[in-house]
Order: sequence, then structure tokens, then C-alpha cells
Amino acid sequence: MRVGIADTTFSRVNMGKIAIDELKSICSLPYVRYTVPGIKDLPIAAKKLIEERDCDIVITCGWVGKTETDKLSYIILGVGIQLVQILTGKHVIDVTIHEDEAENEAELLRIAENRVREHVRNAVDLLLKPEKLEKLAGTGQRQGYEDVGEILK
Amino acid sequence: MRVGIADTTFSRVNMGKIAIDELKSICSLPYVRYTVPGIKDLPIAAKKLIEERDCDIVITCGWVGKTETDKLSYIILGVGIQLVQILTGKHVIDVTIHEDEAENEAELLRIAENRVREHVRNAVDLLLKPEKLEKLAGTGQRQGYEDVGEILK
Amino acid sequence: MRVGIADTTFSRVNMGKIAIDELKSICSLPYVRYTVPGIKDLPIAAKKLIEERDCDIVITCGWVGKTETDKLSYIILGVGIQLVQILTGKHVIDVTIHEDEAENEAELLRIAENRVREHVRNAVDLLLKPEKLEKLAGTGQRQGYEDVGEILK
Amino acid sequence: MRVGIADTTFSRVNMGKIAIDELKSICSLPYVRYTVPGIKDLPIAAKKLIEERDCDIVITCGWVGKTETDKLSYIILGVGIQLVQILTGKHVIDVTIHEDEAENEAELLRIAENRVREHVRNAVDLLLKPEKLEKLAGTGQRQGYEDVGEILK
Amino acid sequence: MRVGIADTTFSRVNMGKIAIDELKSICSLPYVRYTVPGIKDLPIAAKKLIEERDCDIVITCGWVGKTETDKLSYIILGVGIQLVQILTGKHVIDVTIHEDEAENEAELLRIAENRVREHVRNAVDLLLKPEKLEKLAGTGQRQGYEDVGEILK
Repeated sequence: MRVGIADTTFSRVNMGKIAIDELKSICSLPYVRYTVPGIKDLPIAAKKLIEERDCDIVITCGWVGKTETDKLSYIILGVGIQLVQILTGKHVIDVTIHEDEAENEAELLRIAENRVREHVRNAVDLLLKPEKLEKLAGTGQRQGYEDVGEILK
Repeated sequence: MRVGIADTTFSRVNMGKIAIDELKSICSLPYVRYTVPGIKDLPIAAKKLIEERDCDIVITCGWVGKTETDKLSYIILGVGIQLVQILTGKHVIDVTIHEDEAENEAELLRIAENRVREHVRNAVDLLLKPEKLEKLAGTGQRQGYEDVGEILK
Repeated sequence: MRVGIADTTFSRVNMGKIAIDELKSICSLPYVRYTVPGIKDLPIAAKKLIEERDCDIVITCGWVGKTETDKLSYIILGVGIQLVQILTGKHVIDVTIHEDEAENEAELLRIAENRVREHVRNAVDLLLKPEKLEKLAGTGQRQGYEDVGEILK
Repeated sequence: MRVGIADTTFSRVNMGKIAIDELKSICSLPYVRYTVPGIKDLPIAAKKLIEERDCDIVITCGWVGKTETDKLSYIILGVGIQLVQILTGKHVIDVTIHEDEAENEAELLRIAENRVREHVRNAVDLLLKPEKLEKLAGTGQRQGYEDVGEILK
Repeated sequence: MRVGIADTTFSRVNMGKIAIDELKSICSLPYVRYTVPGIKDLPIAAKKLIEERDCDIVITCGWVGKTETDKLSYIILGVGIQLVQILTGKHVIDVTIHEDEAENEAELLRIAENRVREHVRNAVDLLLKPEKLEKLAGTGQRQGYEDVGEILK
């Protein structure tokens, strides 16, 4: 089993490196990294990782700017990721950081690092221990922020 | 015949558990549950339930946050669910709870529970008794809220 | 030749019944009706009517609520209907009523009835007398409202 | 070689007739016309013109209303046209007139006539003389309005 | 190995010519240019360059106007480019200039020239030296503007 990690030169945080660091710390699965210019290049990167590099799951690491155009590009990225997953039959965990999520760079960095790490763990669980995710169903897990928890009666 | 139930760890209500509870209370159809991190992972989960786990219908349980990005993710989810249905030829009933639907947590919980239960019944009717839905055509059924009824002349 | 009619239990007007009534009044084509919960279930209903029930054209009758989420669901519905048409090579006439089109229920009912009837006639013309549509090209036909007419020099 | 022309009864200008008039005035290519009710019916019309009527290129003539729903229908139309082009490998030149483009009917009519004629010439050039388009690359061509020209240093 | 370059007559800058100039200055890869009317014609142009002209990568050069309709056309373009990439398995680097990015023409021209040149280098690196992109991962590369850099702890 192999994990694909796709990231971008556009990102202001080395999300691919963080993903690899997290992956190594929790398991010994081999990985392949593929860096592309921007988020609209990530879906084909994911497809190539699955079909040309034999990855069983891919984590795409995207950075989305603040403008209206960036938000539209996020839709385009998202539709592309759906197409790749549905045509290949494999999960592609789409991790995106949006510049409008935080008020300063330190906060963005913290969110990015945390979100990438948590989604790497999610990807590994999907591959090796899906029952772990089922135990967390409906518990308000958040990646990059504190979990908000289940709504209690 | 088998029912697939896909839900998320992002959700603040254990929608998958509610779906299973409702399913057991109305029929004896076997089911398979699959929990993924968030809504953008639900379409591939539905595809896997249909193609790898032999489900004849899937109920996806999604929780949509309040931000503009969450709304865009809802479009992405929705397009993915369309693709899965059209490529597999099976219904995927897409149940989503939107955090901006209610003013407090108690209300959200009530809506979520009610909507999941009603859509499980819809899914079972689509599979086993489609004539029941035809009898309700045009009657303003709402899932999660009170039905609004047919407009009378 | 067969006509498929798909409608929803969400609708506040029995659009499927109106469609059948209109169809019977203008021709003797056989029809198949399929009722689903909501608009996002209509594309797969159309696909099933075409592929499993041998329909040559489908009329989908959808009712769209007022919220932003409803509008996004309209995009999802629309993309799904495009996919079905392009993959099956058949027309799917997508009739939608939007709750924000009218100021009161009586007006909505009037629009819905009129729009369904006119689009049933359009569907029958596409199937049997496409030259009738060509004669009306560019004449500002409106379904549900009065025609606005051609812009004259 | 054959040109397909698809238009609508919704349009307030007989765009298909103008397209045919222009086509005849510049070349002797045969054509097939297909009129449908509205813009969401144009992609399948284009597909049928290509696959069932052997057209090598299609010009779709669409008229887009002013409401938010009309704009969403424009996205749906556009995605459908992309799918048709990519699955058939043929150009579909999508000519749309938006009612919010002009302040009065006379202006809309002028834009529509001009835009259709210019895009018919574009379609013929794509088919027969693609080098003509290359000569105009980056020159700010506008269809329906005056060309805005290249930005000069 | 061959590079495809698709551009438009709508653009106010001769982006295709700039792309060719840059390509020649950095490598001796052969190229094929294809000019189409507007951005919605670029995805099929890219597909034709890949499938009919044997290109291994395509750079599409698009110019997006300021209106709401132009922004919707950007989504349509983007979804089309995703489809082409995913169905052909090749990268299509989608370079777009948005008229609302700059306050005057001189600035737009500067951005366009710079962005095209940088993305041609990205395309060549993807094809010949992907490890160069990996070295730049997460460094906040911007095409058309100054790079913003990595966020430092």
C-alpha cells in the first residue's frame, strides 16, 4: 500500500513536507510526493499518483487565496477531485487552507500544520483502520481547529 | 437487498447511528456503514458502498458548516453525488444538515434526527414500495421540518 | 415511444399529475411516472426512466425553495440533468418552479400548472413534431408567464 | 463538412435564422438547424447534431434572462456544453445573449445580431481557416460590441 | 515531447506569442499553437492538442472580463479544463488573466506577460524536471506578482 501526497508551490506553508513528516511518525507506509504549481493542478496530480504511481490513497494539499477568483478556483478544484475519486474508485483527501480563515500568518501556519497532520491520520485510518473513524462519527471533529464536539441532548 | 449508510466525523450529530436505528425499526434490510472525515469524502464512500459492498441504495449523511467555503463544499458534494448516481445507476439519498438552518444546537439536533429518519424511510420506499412516494407527490413533504402541504386552489 | 415523468414529494403542487393530464389531452403516447423525494433525486430518476423503463424523453418536475441552499441544489440538479442527457443521448426537459418567483401561493400554483403543461407540449413536439418548435424560434416563449414576444426592429 | 445550429423558442431574437443567413453569405457549407425550448436543452441538441446528424461543429444560440436563477442556468448550460465538446471531440461555439447586457430592446437586438454573425464566422474559420484566428490572437475581439483592441506598451 | 499552446482572440494581450517566446528561450521542445475565440473554447482546444496533435502538456491562455457573466464563464472554463486533464491523463496549465486584477492597462499587460512566462517554465518543469517544483513547494510562488514567500515561524 502506498500513499500519494500532492502539494503546490503556491502554498505559503510546506504542507507536503508536513504530511510526509506526519506519515512517517505514525506508520511505515511508502509514499510518493508530487508538487504542482497551484490548486487547479492538484486533481490531475492525484490521478497520476493513483494510476501511474500505484498509490492507494492521495492527500492533496491546497492553499486558497482571498479573492473571489480564488473561491471559484476552489469549486473547480473540488469538482476535479470528485471526478478523480469517482473515476479511479480511490479516496483523495482534499486538504485546503483558505487565507480568509485566519487574521494573521502565525495563525494560518498553525491551522495548516494541524489540518495536514490530522488529515494524514484520517487517510491512514481510511486505508488501514476504518473502524477508528466510525467510532468518531458525529463527534464534531475539526481539522485545524479544536474539535467542536457532539451536540448533546 | 442492502442499504449503505455513509456519514462523517465532522458532523455534530451521530447521523449514521440514527439512520441505522430507523432502518432497523422499519424493516429487516441488511446495511453497511462507512464513516469518512467530511462531506467531500461522501461521494466516493457512496460509490464504494455500491460497487465494493453491493449496496442497492445509499444514504449519505452530511453536515455543512456556516462559512462561504462550506457552502461551496456543498456544491462540490452535490455534484459528486450526482456523478455517483448517474455512473452507478443507483439512488444516493443525500441528507445534509446546514448549520445556518437553526438558531441553536437543540434545534439543529432535532432537525438532524428528524431529517435522517424521514430520508431513511424515503430510501426504503424507493427500494421496496415506490408507489408510496407517488401517493405523496406534490404534498409539500419536508424532512426535518413540518410538512408544508399542497397548495390548494 | 414513451414519455417519462419524474416528480417529487417536496413539491407543493402535484406537477406529475398535471403533466399526465396534459399528456393525455394532446396525444396517446404511453407514459411512466416516477416520484422521488426531492430535486437532487430527479436526475437518477430520469436516467432510470430512460434506461430501465425505455422512455424516449423525460420531463422532470422540480420545486425549488427560497434559501441559498435551495439555489445551490438547483445548480446540482441542473448539472445532473445535463449529465443524464449527454450520457443517454435523450432530452430531459427540466421544469422547475422557484418559490421566489411569485408573491403568493395562488400565483405559484398558476405558474406551476401552466409551466408543466407548456413543457409537456414542448416535449411532445421535440419527439413528434420538432418543426413546430422551429417555427417558434426566437419568439420569446415563456412557460408559466405570458410570452414576451420577439423584439421587433 | 456540416454546421449545426441550435437555438431556442425562449430567445427574443431569431438567432438561428440570423446564423443561417450569415453562414450562407460567407460559404456554401451545408447546415442543420435544431430548435429547442430553452438554454438547458442546448447541450443535448448540440450532441444530437454532432452524433445523429453528422455535424462537424455546432453553434448554440442561447438567451439568458435577468434573474439569479437565469444566471445559474447559464452555468448549467456552460458545463453541459463543455461535456459535449470533450466527449465528442468537436467544437461547440456557445453564443449567449444576456438580458442584463443592454438597457433597451433595440440595443439587445443589435448585440444579438452582431454576436451571432461574428461567431458564425469564427466557427467557419475554426473549421476551414484556423490560421485566420491565430492572426487575431490577443487583439481584444468582442462579439456584439466594438473590439477593444490589444493593450499596447 | 511536444507542448500545446492554446490562446484566444478575446484576449487583449498576445499571450500565445509570449508563451512561444518563453518556451523557445528555455528549451528546444517543439510546440503547436491553437487560437480560439474565447475562454469557453479553450478546453476542447486543449483536448484536440493532446489527442489530435500529440501534445504531452498544454498551456491554455485565457482572458476573463469583469462582469458577473465573465466570472461564471471562468467556472465553466475551469470545469472543462479539469475534465480534459482527467480524461486524457495530461496536465493542462490554465493561465488566466482577470480584468479586475489591475487598475490600468499597463499593469494588466505586465501581469499577463509575467504570468504566462512563469507558467511556461512551470509546464516545462512538470514535463522535464518535476524535482524543481518540489524544491519550491510551499514557498508562496505567485505568477504575475512578486512571490509572497513561505510563512516563517
